[in-house]
Amino acid sequence: MYRILLLLLLSFSAKAQNDSTFIRSVYNTALSDGEAYEDLRSLCKDIGARISGSAEAEMAVYWGEAKMREYGFDKVYLQEIQVPHWERGTKEAGWIKSKDGQLFKVHLLALGGSIGTNGSMEADVIEFKTLDALKKANPNSVKGKIVFVNQHMDEQQINTFRAYGGCYAMRGNGAVEASKLGASAILIRSLGLPVDEHPHTGSMHYVDSVERIPAAALSTIDAEKLSDILKKGKARFVLEMDCRSYPDATSYNVIGEMTGTEKPDEIITFGGHLDSWDTGEGAHDDGAGIVHCLEALRILKTLNYKPKHTLRLVFFMNEENGNRGGQSYASIAKEKGEKQIAAIESDRGGFTPRGFHCDGSDEFVTLLQSFESDLTHYDLHVFEKGYGGVDIGPLKKYYPEIPLFGFVPDSQRYFDFHHAPSDVFENVNKRELELGAAAVASLLYLLDLNL
Amino acid sequence: MYRILLLLLLSFSAKAQNDSTFIRSVYNTALSDGEAYEDLRSLCKDIGARISGSAEAEMAVYWGEAKMREYGFDKVYLQEIQVPHWERGTKEAGWIKSKDGQLFKVHLLALGGSIGTNGSMEADVIEFKTLDALKKANPNSVKGKIVFVNQHMDEQQINTFRAYGGCYAMRGNGAVEASKLGASAILIRSLGLPVDEHPHTGSMHYVDSVERIPAAALSTIDAEKLSDILKKGKARFVLEMDCRSYPDATSYNVIGEMTGTEKPDEIITFGGHLDSWDTGEGAHDDGAGIVHCLEALRILKTLNYKPKHTLRLVFFMNEENGNRGGQSYASIAKEKGEKQIAAIESDRGGFTPRGFHCDGSDEFVTLLQSFESDLTHYDLHVFEKGYGGVDIGPLKKYYPEIPLFGFVPDSQRYFDFHHAPSDVFENVNKRELELGAAAVASLLYLLDLNL
Repeated sequence: MYRILLLLLLSFSAKAQNDSTFIRSVYNTALSDGEAYEDLRSLCKDIGARISGSAEAEMAVYWGEAKMREYGFDKVYLQEIQVPHWERGTKEAGWIKSKDGQLFKVHLLALGGSIGTNGSMEADVIEFKTLDALKKANPNSVKGKIVFVNQHMDEQQINTFRAYGGCYAMRGNGAVEASKLGASAILIRSLGLPVDEHPHTGSMHYVDSVERIPAAALSTIDAEKLSDILKKGKARFVLEMDCRSYPDATSYNVIGEMTGTEKPDEIITFGGHLDSWDTGEGAHDDGAGIVHCLEALRILKTLNYKPKHTLRLVFFMNEENGNRGGQSYASIAKEKGEKQIAAIESDRGGFTPRGFHCDGSDEFVTLLQSFESDLTHYDLHVFEKGYGGVDIGPLKKYYPEIPLFGFVPDSQRYFDFHHAPSDVFENVNKRELELGAAAVASLLYLLDLNL
Repeated sequence: MYRILLLLLLSFSAKAQNDSTFIRSVYNTALSDGEAYEDLRSLCKDIGARISGSAEAEMAVYWGEAKMREYGFDKVYLQEIQVPHWERGTKEAGWIKSKDGQLFKVHLLALGGSIGTNGSMEADVIEFKTLDALKKANPNSVKGKIVFVNQHMDEQQINTFRAYGGCYAMRGNGAVEASKLGASAILIRSLGLPVDEHPHTGSMHYVDSVERIPAAALSTIDAEKLSDILKKGKARFVLEMDCRSYPDATSYNVIGEMTGTEKPDEIITFGGHLDSWDTGEGAHDDGAGIVHCLEALRILKTLNYKPKHTLRLVFFMNEENGNRGGQSYASIAKEKGEKQIAAIESDRGGFTPRGFHCDGSDEFVTLLQSFESDLTHYDLHVFEKGYGGVDIGPLKKYYPEIPLFGFVPDSQRYFDFHHAPSDVFENVNKRELELGAAAVASLLYLLDLNL
């Protein structure tokens, strides 16, 4: 606490001047000699979508390790984990049959973890406006039907992650709730804000006590179409999916370090997740976070920065459907008796930076806020208490005092692309990506200096 | 000033609570029942690029007047002006001829106002890294050649408008400076940040005492190519353009008003510019500003707001190559003895909002800053002294005390599209556009309430 007060008092001192000069160098390197955009192109185009357990995920591990070695980090190693292995298969299609015999092919994606349909299935559709409405339904009205939950993300939320949070349970729990009432399958409206033709996949779960039924997300434009048709009378839906789960597969967290010069046993962990969903290219989610953090460490090394603490870059595996990477990383750290003093995560896309959240005590929130004077020139203005991230979250279990920092880019476009075929390299802006890398590098530097 | 202090004191009062409630309604309307995106689609697709003096500009005037009447504003009228009339013509092409005989076709656009080449021309190329370097050149080295100024926008500027300002003179004055030294034509590197194939046009000028030479902008990727070829030896350039100027044409500012209920003779002017360059669709520049302001007034009317002062929406004509609309508007206001008390402009694109600049006395900057508590929930954080805008700028000449407010969206992507074929509707994000309209409507409301 004393150090924090001192820092505030010194905010116009020579030291603060040096911070500003160094941070300016960080930004100049990111913007004039950056490699983030080319690294993202490579991850998206040379590998592409990389769901846990896939050959692409294996290639991403290879890519990550090779990149870290190429950049000459002090230690580069893999951390073996077991990950869920689910595959979409080759058949995935759906049609609406209207009362008057018209047929409409829809854009859909099986939700991650869903069972297949074992050939095609066909049933009447019953629509619910929300998951809560489904829960209250009479089982007689649902039995044997395909449930369609048409819950909209709330576009009036300025922070789009809040709108996402409001619909998350529909995707995660919808299949269990529909099956409890005897439904034969569930379709949900995609968790995306625009009304367009891109379906958005994402994780769902089953419970052992309830029969498993197929689950898929319709694109928002098809959800509107189905709802319109249902307003005019009955409709049937034909669904075929041959997705399935396989036994757990071996995979890895990829780790690279710059060793601390003063306190090498004190570790600042930072990273994003290397896996993605199996559609699009995982460009914003979370290719952007991967290259933000990779580029951050590359820049600090390029500028010949000698960290006080050990800076540990982690490409976490399996954030999307299990979080095995994050959980294993935290438990292994504890087992080894490591001293984890802070963690940073970037997993909200490669958009223009706004600032950082801190999930930690008031002392650490105050520390974060003390960085504002150094960072405000870079259009950063969010320095507040908030969420860290899914991958670094498990550290809290073993290190209750650790502050977790979440990088906060602008949220307006994220749910245009999230988990959708449109999450491709072309939808990431070069400058926005570079500014994100510079912001993460600057926070890493300031934390190393002030912890 | 007293009112401003009072406002600060009352910031947690019932009044502030009412402001917040009303502003929430503004945002809800923009996000759930908005028409900004569809209006922009119509302006971009039903009309398209609309340079002053063109049939498209005439259609845009028709469109603007019809929209204002459709929305039922109290008064809708046109203000006649004379505008420059320049046309690109039908031939526009350029080739690099390298020393070893290779031919490369480039992407280029004549600068607005340039003369044509009168058939094709061919000459040796001489490159300068900056306009200043050109000014210092020996005339013997330039005479008869095509000058190529390859000045880069400074990507290290966080605010991209600063980077633009640093290159602006190359485009505006380059032809005059090159011609003074005997050059036969000038090519400039496009004023765009990405290295891509889109040339960026924009205004340039001649002076009577210096011979007029053709002027064009190469896409940044072609500028790099030409520079690379010149590193290896001499290169020639073949240029053909049949652009030309015509006599001034008649056009119009389009004006719509909501009449003030308490002080109808006190006017708050707000708007953007209806003309665009003749490439792309003028989507960000300044279709976004047009629909921000149109939607702002529509929302206030929809919410049954009764303004104290007269709110006057102006679609200015001819911002891009003459500013005749802005100049005429200001001088007519003065002639009529109007009381202009404030003005707002949106002309920096349809990107995620950051806040507002105020070009005015400290009193008005303080007033703007007092709005922060009402607007911070909407991700707005820029409330500072700064630039108003080109169209409202001339009001200062006649109303030296008037505060001018410039809407400030995020600047990172603007110079990807500015004056380029890529400035099309598809590159504007719906939510970002809607949030801009809500931000402008909120500022309009707060100014009306507090002035």
